[in-house]
Amino acid sequence: MSLRSLGVELHCRCIQTESRPIGRHIEKVELIPANSHCEETEIIATLKKDGQEVCLDPEAPWVKKVIQRIMANKKR
Amino acid sequence: MSLRSLGVELHCRCIQTESRPIGRHIEKVELIPANSHCEETEIIATLKKDGQEVCLDPEAPWVKKVIQRIMANKKR
Repeated sequence: MSLRSLGVELHCRCIQTESRPIGRHIEKVELIPANSHCEETEIIATLKKDGQEVCLDPEAPWVKKVIQRIMANKKR
Repeated sequence: MSLRSLGVELHCRCIQTESRPIGRHIEKVELIPANSHCEETEIIATLKKDGQEVCLDPEAPWVKKVIQRIMANKKR
């Protein structure tokens, strides 16, 4: 049995990130800190409409604002 | 078939939040913005050790710092 078959990720999950500001369409956001399998922080947003998972760029100003807005509990 | 049986949450997921600063033990963090089912932002951390899910207080200074550190891609 491999680690992968146990659902353990051994690499980065994001290949490309969404460039359009889709903050209003986000249902939830997953933040995955850098770890031994991926040296970059990964941000994966789940969309309200269809539950699609989209990777976001932690460096993008609009992404930082979305996270800040969620943390501040501000309505979208 | 109820919405709940489809995995749709109709209420807040967090009952209580972790008060101890457990930043170093976090594998990933889920941010759930306020929505029609829960008027508060919810933060659910998954622990490295056992995959346990723990709710964090979005207002707690140490929680804000953990999120900032992840966004800045700083090693723990």
